[in-house]
Amino acid sequence: MLSALSAASHPRPGVVSMIVALAGGVGGAKLAHGLSMCLPPRELAVLVNTADDFDIYGLRVCPDLDTVMYTLAGVANPETGWGVKGDTFAALDMLRHYGQDTWFRIGDRDLATDVLRTYMLRDGRPLTEVVSAMSSSLGVGPAMLPMCDEAVATVIQTPDGELDFQDYFVRRHHEPTVTGVRYKGVEQARPTLALLSALEGAEAVVFCPSNPIVSIGPILAVPGMREALLRSSAVSIAVSPIVAGQALRGPADRMLESLGHEVSALGVARIYQGLVQGLVIDTSDAELETPIRELGMEVLVAPTVMRDDADRRTLAEVVLRFARALNHGR
Amino acid sequence: MLSALSAASHPRPGVVSMIVALAGGVGGAKLAHGLSMCLPPRELAVLVNTADDFDIYGLRVCPDLDTVMYTLAGVANPETGWGVKGDTFAALDMLRHYGQDTWFRIGDRDLATDVLRTYMLRDGRPLTEVVSAMSSSLGVGPAMLPMCDEAVATVIQTPDGELDFQDYFVRRHHEPTVTGVRYKGVEQARPTLALLSALEGAEAVVFCPSNPIVSIGPILAVPGMREALLRSSAVSIAVSPIVAGQALRGPADRMLESLGHEVSALGVARIYQGLVQGLVIDTSDAELETPIRELGMEVLVAPTVMRDDADRRTLAEVVLRFARALNHGR
Repeated sequence: MLSALSAASHPRPGVVSMIVALAGGVGGAKLAHGLSMCLPPRELAVLVNTADDFDIYGLRVCPDLDTVMYTLAGVANPETGWGVKGDTFAALDMLRHYGQDTWFRIGDRDLATDVLRTYMLRDGRPLTEVVSAMSSSLGVGPAMLPMCDEAVATVIQTPDGELDFQDYFVRRHHEPTVTGVRYKGVEQARPTLALLSALEGAEAVVFCPSNPIVSIGPILAVPGMREALLRSSAVSIAVSPIVAGQALRGPADRMLESLGHEVSALGVARIYQGLVQGLVIDTSDAELETPIRELGMEVLVAPTVMRDDADRRTLAEVVLRFARALNHGR
Repeated sequence: MLSALSAASHPRPGVVSMIVALAGGVGGAKLAHGLSMCLPPRELAVLVNTADDFDIYGLRVCPDLDTVMYTLAGVANPETGWGVKGDTFAALDMLRHYGQDTWFRIGDRDLATDVLRTYMLRDGRPLTEVVSAMSSSLGVGPAMLPMCDEAVATVIQTPDGELDFQDYFVRRHHEPTVTGVRYKGVEQARPTLALLSALEGAEAVVFCPSNPIVSIGPILAVPGMREALLRSSAVSIAVSPIVAGQALRGPADRMLESLGHEVSALGVARIYQGLVQGLVIDTSDAELETPIRELGMEVLVAPTVMRDDADRRTLAEVVLRFARALNHGR
């Protein structure tokens, strides 16, 4: 199976066998980028979390979508992982002169993205269509699919009350202890037709190494999403975002701990149990192979830290080979 | 009278005697700036054309308001007269990547102005309030008053049909022959309370050297505006934007000609006849003094070309002295 892989060098028109990657922020975008280096554009779809979207200055900001878009377009800021390479902050400085809060660092090029997206959304176009048009303009080949067209907002519960996600994540530098998470508005959300169609034709679903709680979590919380994943004949594999008991970036480790999960690849495996058939864990976590297998999951041990583009491509190849092997074994 | 002038050095709290300046784009902004150098902030109000406002990328752009605001704030681009000094164009470049038209050159700082204004307007705040808040944030002391809170749009009639104002002015570099002008939506517009109150307390109204057709014209076309000007006890004087038969910048000369006006300070005097008691004309037009006087208008001959800040201040002083003299003579 997995013709998407073999088709990389011999594309067969008319036969589209998708790899669907579930991604949140920077880590997810990196693996999605690696996959885009291995696959013909039409055989990859990236399903992106939108529950960190929010409004500021009357603009609709979609941080995870933009991180994935900029990364796939090759224009992401390599230092931060988010935002546009070489972006400037003149507009933000002006907004500060106008007395506005500027803790969310939107660069000038990034602001153009927000302005145009807001314009198209206000014009009545669904987010899926807006993202498709904008990512194509930037030369992104693979389909980029928002998890839904409805507005969903991750709300972080802390001992001091609830916080909007970006308030917690950016303004407070994800320092508050997370006692709970809810996805506001998710009950009204539905997987889009584009997404269901991609899943239906998928040979493999890849859970990228994104935060299981606030990146992959909202995607899985969309009513009908788990069912669509389980209904799909695709093999599903995940890449652990926890390496040697730590998140490579962001608060996933502290968040898992305060929410009562084990902070390890095993903890991640437990969260994805029943949804994925295989887990890729880092070589530094090799001792977890057996306990994870005991959950009824295949395990591949490989280097998973992506420091550069070559690492992204290598991990993507590992993931695709693993998926192929699992598919052959079924 | 004209206590605004004498009060410059001895402000008397509670007694506000306004100078109201009518302004459009760059020329008007320059004299308004000169006036702001001569008067205490609370004794100057600048009444600004809004009929060149338009929407792009879902943002409300107000070119004349912004030119006046940036000029009074001391942040205007000295080369162009419009936009912000030292502004960059990263967002516009990104919008071009997204396939958007970018003939209207919005800088990054300028874009922040448009974003914030649009946000506040969508929030239901009247333009007058939005402009007041934003100009104050930039340190502008004098009141900036949009000619109305309703949307009015100058439409340019040409042999090839009608053009939106910015399409004519910016995209087509004001090259098409103007056969007529109309102010779309002006019948629904009304002078704002802030504006009526400023006019009521005004000692002098100054028609800045802006285009009489597309800058001052729309202001005068607001139903009730002429009546408010005539009802006011203020002396009204204009500064001719035509010097030696030419506009100092922009298409005013060609526009006056194609619309059947004489392209001279005398032509300007005829347009403002009945509305102003005095006209300031340039020394190069001294021979027009007598024919303009014959229209029943006082004339002051003075250098009117404003090359630098000192020129702006000097012309403002000339204008204020002229107004004072006319008031004494009444």
